[in-house]
Amino acid sequence: MKKFAVLGYGTVGSGVVELFYKNREKIEQKAGCPMEVGYILDLRDFPDSPYADKFTKSMDSILADPEVSVVAECMGGVEPAFTYLMQCLGKGISVATSNKELIARKGAQLLAEAKAHSCNCFFEASVGGAIPIIRPLHRCLAANDITAVYGILNGTTNFILDKMLSDDMSFEAALALAQELGYAEREPSADVDGHDACRKICIISSLVFGKHVYPESVKTVGIREVSLADAAAADALDGAVKLIASVRRLEDGRILPMVQPMFVPHDNMLSRVDGVFNAVMVCGDGIDRAVFCGRGAGKLPTASAVMGDVIEAAKHQCTVFSQDWVDSGEQDFVADADALCCGLMIRIANGDAAALAAAVGDRCEASAVVDGGAACYTTCLNAVEQQDLLAELNNAGLQVVSALPVLDA
Amino acid sequence: MKKFAVLGYGTVGSGVVELFYKNREKIEQKAGCPMEVGYILDLRDFPDSPYADKFTKSMDSILADPEVSVVAECMGGVEPAFTYLMQCLGKGISVATSNKELIARKGAQLLAEAKAHSCNCFFEASVGGAIPIIRPLHRCLAANDITAVYGILNGTTNFILDKMLSDDMSFEAALALAQELGYAEREPSADVDGHDACRKICIISSLVFGKHVYPESVKTVGIREVSLADAAAADALDGAVKLIASVRRLEDGRILPMVQPMFVPHDNMLSRVDGVFNAVMVCGDGIDRAVFCGRGAGKLPTASAVMGDVIEAAKHQCTVFSQDWVDSGEQDFVADADALCCGLMIRIANGDAAALAAAVGDRCEASAVVDGGAACYTTCLNAVEQQDLLAELNNAGLQVVSALPVLDA
Repeated sequence: MKKFAVLGYGTVGSGVVELFYKNREKIEQKAGCPMEVGYILDLRDFPDSPYADKFTKSMDSILADPEVSVVAECMGGVEPAFTYLMQCLGKGISVATSNKELIARKGAQLLAEAKAHSCNCFFEASVGGAIPIIRPLHRCLAANDITAVYGILNGTTNFILDKMLSDDMSFEAALALAQELGYAEREPSADVDGHDACRKICIISSLVFGKHVYPESVKTVGIREVSLADAAAADALDGAVKLIASVRRLEDGRILPMVQPMFVPHDNMLSRVDGVFNAVMVCGDGIDRAVFCGRGAGKLPTASAVMGDVIEAAKHQCTVFSQDWVDSGEQDFVADADALCCGLMIRIANGDAAALAAAVGDRCEASAVVDGGAACYTTCLNAVEQQDLLAELNNAGLQVVSALPVLDA
Repeated sequence: MKKFAVLGYGTVGSGVVELFYKNREKIEQKAGCPMEVGYILDLRDFPDSPYADKFTKSMDSILADPEVSVVAECMGGVEPAFTYLMQCLGKGISVATSNKELIARKGAQLLAEAKAHSCNCFFEASVGGAIPIIRPLHRCLAANDITAVYGILNGTTNFILDKMLSDDMSFEAALALAQELGYAEREPSADVDGHDACRKICIISSLVFGKHVYPESVKTVGIREVSLADAAAADALDGAVKLIASVRRLEDGRILPMVQPMFVPHDNMLSRVDGVFNAVMVCGDGIDRAVFCGRGAGKLPTASAVMGDVIEAAKHQCTVFSQDWVDSGEQDFVADADALCCGLMIRIANGDAAALAAAVGDRCEASAVVDGGAACYTTCLNAVEQQDLLAELNNAGLQVVSALPVLDA
């Protein structure tokens, strides 16, 4: 019998308990042993819950029970989650968490503590929600030299960008709709300003490249400045505007993680990822490209990933070393955002496509020019070349209203 | 030091050796121990190979070396691969194979032998090529009740169907092109008649539902009868014709695995999977839907999956029980193909869309009717209702030239 505890009985925590009892027989079969929810930690009371006898307000009682071998952390936020999980790991109790903020800030410390006590810190739910991505990255794709990862890692912004185009809405109206439908928080900054996607690409970057990447070192631009006109121009140019969280290894060995709205051509599968779905594209020397797509949030999808980790932790008697990174202290491991070379989707105010084409001349190759004064230039420009080009267009009297980087993957 | 042997130095086997030496440092780090290719088994001589000293023609010498802990089987075909792998497993040597025919026919026996000797039989490369699907199914999604899996599991047929539409080609011309480009064999039956996809869906069905499903019990229809007119009609109906390998659990608990060309609406991600890519959609009660996409074949993509398994096998000291199924001997576990209820894409010879709509009447709901006498009916019909409808259309003087099931996932 393996007993596990659930910390936090909000959306995800209650989903973990629900999914466990719904599929208990299958789960025990996969784990190879009987399992039981030993405790549910929450400050609130749930007297009418069928699991009322399992609730506790005391983390100490969980830590004191030698039968608890796994803890599922579904509280969110750095504290007290971090303290609790360090206490668990210090006692050799494995943890499974959906908490992206925690892993993005404290992952290296948690992994080191797990290693020191021969247990595991799993976090599959922290990046792609229901999408299996952490385990595929370090296990299934372990033979690859992974060079880049591109993802749509925030369903709220993806829903908003979709709705703007499909229902002819402004950013503000689409955000209001997302809030009404419960896809966006009343305080939407974590989503629309890209912080949520930033935490997730930090976790992926750390895992893939082996050194902890902190959110502060990642250039993060949200979608507030994306207009309906941008979305419509992208559509006319045979692509879509998506909030892309990405990391790539540069030729000099440094890595470049970023979060920003990008023009994604329709020949890239990420352009077709709709609504609240998330997707991750992994590029490696063995696989070329692989894409993983699914629900990035929600009660049962997230619970599915947490519970998958709980099962894995129940099976493993020792640390899984392939899922590891360190806090290297190297500041220059992460390149400056200026290091990005890319094409540009350019849109000008006066809508004169011919004038735009004439002003750009032969310095960039255009994949498409549409009426309405927008064009997609695929020629890869470095930061200085981009600035020069935009300055020249402005000098030519063409007011550039947006210039979005083009995803070339 | 973990020594592994590679059986067969064809495309996949040579890819395994190439990928190992290319990424050896990363691979050893993931495995947590130094690794080395101990032997390469092949009947041919490779005197100029940099690995010439590793070649052997004797399986016995591999079996006799107590340092060999993993064997990568890349020979293909049931024999002698089956005999060799049973010998390995019987000695506690784990195996990793890309051989779908072998697993589809002998999987239950190999898994039982692995269990009996506390080692592993891994086969990630046998289904999706580079796409991680086996491990995600039994590990990451272990908390789900998986109800259905739909896949594009054969890149050759997907390439042919794509080319027919994009380059206005007949099936025969597109097949000839695929053969010219090396995507199709000179004897293309395994691909175009659906046998390859059938083996793969047998493996997925066995893993997901726990009982060995043999190729003979799976209705398998290839793409020889799909015409350019069908592909064009599907496109006009906002979808695509794809060879879909699927398995779903019916309400009575039986399962229904099938391989057949289907109409896939464009709101399903599988409709956008292009060319030689494969994709698998998994439906479960926790995740809702998740899609995995990548290269389904090729030297390094397949080698990536085999090598991932070799690393996993090198790490594991005991059998992974979540990856298991048995030969239950139950004949009626697999339902007859008649049990499929689905919508239909119907195309008639005389191209009179109005006559088609009138003859179908209100018995089916049409998602789209196009000029050219094709329509997509989404109402779910059982086998008898389908026969009745098609008979009635023929009675009304409308010659039905094709009726493709509609994928509703």
